[in-house]
Amino acid sequence: MNKDIIPGEHVISREPFPASRKVYVKGQLHDISVAMREISVGNTVDRFSDTETPNAPVTAYDTSGPYTDPVVDIDLEKGLPRIREQWILNRGDVHGAPLRARSGKNVTQLHYAKRGIITPEMEYIAIRENQGGEGRITPAFVRDEVAAGRAVIPANINHPETEPMIIGRNFLVKINANIGNSAIRSSIEEEVEKAVWACRWGADTIMDLSTGKNIHETREWILRNSPVPVGTVPIYQALEKVGGRAEELTWEIYRDTLIEQAEQGVDYFTIHAGVLLRYIPLTAKRVTGIVSRGGSIMAKWCLAHHRESFLYTHFEEICGIMKAYDVSFSLGDGLRPGSIADANDAAQFAELETLGELTKIAWKHDCQVIIEGPGHIPMHLIKENMDKQLKECQEAPFYTLGPLTTDIAPGYDHITSAIGAAMIGWYGTAMLCYVTPKEHLGLPNKKDVKDGVIAYKIAAHAADLAKGHPGAQHRDNALSKARFEFRWQDQFNLSLDPDTARAFHDETLPAEGAKIAHFCSMCGPHFCSMKITQEVRRFAEENGMDETTALEEGMKEKAEAFKQAGVEIYL
Amino acid sequence: MNKDIIPGEHVISREPFPASRKVYVKGQLHDISVAMREISVGNTVDRFSDTETPNAPVTAYDTSGPYTDPVVDIDLEKGLPRIREQWILNRGDVHGAPLRARSGKNVTQLHYAKRGIITPEMEYIAIRENQGGEGRITPAFVRDEVAAGRAVIPANINHPETEPMIIGRNFLVKINANIGNSAIRSSIEEEVEKAVWACRWGADTIMDLSTGKNIHETREWILRNSPVPVGTVPIYQALEKVGGRAEELTWEIYRDTLIEQAEQGVDYFTIHAGVLLRYIPLTAKRVTGIVSRGGSIMAKWCLAHHRESFLYTHFEEICGIMKAYDVSFSLGDGLRPGSIADANDAAQFAELETLGELTKIAWKHDCQVIIEGPGHIPMHLIKENMDKQLKECQEAPFYTLGPLTTDIAPGYDHITSAIGAAMIGWYGTAMLCYVTPKEHLGLPNKKDVKDGVIAYKIAAHAADLAKGHPGAQHRDNALSKARFEFRWQDQFNLSLDPDTARAFHDETLPAEGAKIAHFCSMCGPHFCSMKITQEVRRFAEENGMDETTALEEGMKEKAEAFKQAGVEIYL
Repeated sequence: MNKDIIPGEHVISREPFPASRKVYVKGQLHDISVAMREISVGNTVDRFSDTETPNAPVTAYDTSGPYTDPVVDIDLEKGLPRIREQWILNRGDVHGAPLRARSGKNVTQLHYAKRGIITPEMEYIAIRENQGGEGRITPAFVRDEVAAGRAVIPANINHPETEPMIIGRNFLVKINANIGNSAIRSSIEEEVEKAVWACRWGADTIMDLSTGKNIHETREWILRNSPVPVGTVPIYQALEKVGGRAEELTWEIYRDTLIEQAEQGVDYFTIHAGVLLRYIPLTAKRVTGIVSRGGSIMAKWCLAHHRESFLYTHFEEICGIMKAYDVSFSLGDGLRPGSIADANDAAQFAELETLGELTKIAWKHDCQVIIEGPGHIPMHLIKENMDKQLKECQEAPFYTLGPLTTDIAPGYDHITSAIGAAMIGWYGTAMLCYVTPKEHLGLPNKKDVKDGVIAYKIAAHAADLAKGHPGAQHRDNALSKARFEFRWQDQFNLSLDPDTARAFHDETLPAEGAKIAHFCSMCGPHFCSMKITQEVRRFAEENGMDETTALEEGMKEKAEAFKQAGVEIYL
Repeated sequence: MNKDIIPGEHVISREPFPASRKVYVKGQLHDISVAMREISVGNTVDRFSDTETPNAPVTAYDTSGPYTDPVVDIDLEKGLPRIREQWILNRGDVHGAPLRARSGKNVTQLHYAKRGIITPEMEYIAIRENQGGEGRITPAFVRDEVAAGRAVIPANINHPETEPMIIGRNFLVKINANIGNSAIRSSIEEEVEKAVWACRWGADTIMDLSTGKNIHETREWILRNSPVPVGTVPIYQALEKVGGRAEELTWEIYRDTLIEQAEQGVDYFTIHAGVLLRYIPLTAKRVTGIVSRGGSIMAKWCLAHHRESFLYTHFEEICGIMKAYDVSFSLGDGLRPGSIADANDAAQFAELETLGELTKIAWKHDCQVIIEGPGHIPMHLIKENMDKQLKECQEAPFYTLGPLTTDIAPGYDHITSAIGAAMIGWYGTAMLCYVTPKEHLGLPNKKDVKDGVIAYKIAAHAADLAKGHPGAQHRDNALSKARFEFRWQDQFNLSLDPDTARAFHDETLPAEGAKIAHFCSMCGPHFCSMKITQEVRRFAEENGMDETTALEEGMKEKAEAFKQAGVEIYL
């Protein structure tokens, strides 16, 4: 186990999750191996008869990449294994180094899907989404959802290190973790560490939002070592190139930045092409104006030049770049509300309609598209956002930041927003951009990244349950069964964060023996509802009491027996 | 400031909140002083003209009690000031020590309300609920809601230290914090410390769930020093009296326990009177059986005796006790689901129907009633719970534990449940029982109590916003305006947890000067969307651009001027 693979203080954990092993499921159409995490679970012990019944292991969707597979040798200088490289080359439509579509070719997954092709990426995703269960999600279904524009597969041909994943509302809800340095602080090492850390805890994609020094180099390190798709906001780097003066931005500088990042392998670009000149005055009376960095940069440019932005006027040329590398559009909501007071206002919805128009143009080029959404929304206005997005953007996947459901809890915005995220995920949002406890206050450190990721895994999973995603409840049931049977280790191992669950338990009852005790620290040995109910259930079962009629027939004479059994044997 | 008012390691903070002072609003009907917290807010500084505009202070609902008023002398041995004592005595319907209703008298707030009386408690609540704003909530409205059974005022005549509060869905959503020791750990000092700490951060009521030693003494200390109503589950103490053997419980032991606790001043009792014999077999096939401690104790008793429980058969006698002290019923959901798999099942809903029948009986005695609810519920099943509760229980206030929206995150159940709590609060639940990060794992320590309370203040406030509670958004707007204007101190001071907000900010930009900087640590000085948008807004306003027409008319010639201004003056 080489844990200390970044020199200095930054550590990348290669420790597999407890009781877990990496398993690889083979494809049937393609020569692929789909990575999953298998969590082994202990036996159910019948305390009355001392017989044991095995419980099936639980297979979990795994975003941690090769880092948690001890047999994979990882060298950050070399980058992760390039699992998609041969798939890409085999298609025969790319050339060069970095790769680029051959002349006249379109290398997007949407383009393939529309032509009826099931790519290795699509089969990988079908297997992965089923989480080891029966195959409801078929490769053809993946293809059809992509072809319809209802789902995207972020998969730049220059990012062969990614394990394919899909963003669409008929699949598991995904989460994104933002990382990135600023002029004020942070280092490349720290960002790589945070990227891998975010994936370990469940980030399905990461966005590198660096705005400070070494933007290109930071991104290169992240891309080469990220097992998940990476998104960026290219206008940030373009702005650095003009010394931070928004009005000096030009199409040419922006275009070159897009190509530079596409060649590095960025999988999706946030592009704020919906900030139109006429929408800007709609923000003037807001409580919090324009809070999107990209949105405010473009607003400033538009006002300074009194022209529509080059993102809008050159949109078709942007499509040309995107399809040459298969970079997905993430159409940014530059006018999203930054406070409860500004939610669902004219500026936000006007931009959303424009994003819908741009989606049609992108689809004309077979470019993949997701739509970004807010932000700050009180609960009763969340559904309106989702419904309007589906309608205006023809069901292109929605990708929201939270939303935060109140403004009054800086320091806890992972919670204010997990509430909104869970709800909008249930309503149909395909990917949830995390918010960390440091939102509005500072850049997240490693602990904040984990706190944000876990809060969003909770939101995404709650949404999967509410949507009735097949198999989503499997892990809940296994964990609850373990809890009920006092299988403490299984309860920890099946949880989203086994380390924290174990540590919290040990604070109260640290003895190793307590973890197999038939009670817990909340109530003590003689006061446990689970213990009592186990006795109740056992007695009920033994006496045929699982039907009300049984109770009515012969309970009375059995009461004394139960009293004896309950008192003498089990208490 | 006597911070160290409990000997030893346990400290009760008497520090007022930053920039806050205690204000007292006088009543008009009664001689009462309603405590509130006034948060002062700095001026808005126009960076272009250097003129300053004052911002109104924000008045917040305050549960922290006299502890945050530096002029009040507090001695834990003596207990808090007995603000309700004279009100109670003035009514002339009590006698003795401890107090008890005179023969033939009924001293419940519901009884007074039905007779058209506006008590001092009701006027206090009306003023308090308005949070210093215009008086939408009138004393008569409070009375009418109580009279209709849609709201309760937990106000035992032997707990005169409470600052009156109301639980009902046409008022602010309230939260409860559970504390209490067990046989395994915890001390009286620690529980008092946690009780006051919970109130400081926003607990509207606390429940003492102690099950270990010194139950009576622990409760006495908590009651005498709690500024909020206190609830208990009397069956826990009754069970201790019979050595933990549920089947040895009797009506007489339980009755005496109720009286003992009523005389001490407990404001509401959780009573699991809806666990009927015929419902118990309905739990046998559940994943997690019966998880309520009270529910499992009663189930065990019912099976052992093959009889309906004494809680059910003696319900009218219980009513007689409740109305002699004005203890409110909190009808417990002993068969609540303990896992997603068991949500909304036959056992849960059968018990809920019985709770509805018991509500009618309690109301016949003019006893106040709230109804407890689950537990573990996936999002899509939450509303069904709320709707069924309103229907079956004739709109008696609902009081839910969470609900947790997934089972897979032990260690983070304050978050899994804040999601469900916010939603069910929006749908109409009147009080949310907090869940701490230690739920399922151990007893909460002081940090866990605060984490649970803050998560639930977020959920309750998000629900108030979604319900459109008048005045609820006032604090959000003030905080967001401060954020937008880079008034960092105001942003911290207006937040639910100023200490954490300030500490998080200081981690990245600790210099005192940074708190008045016109940028923040996330983006650095030259990359701030709020800064850019302030410039955009200013320019737009100066040039009459708050209307789209203005833009279309004359923007072009103004573009160069903006460019100059933007570059030279403000960047």
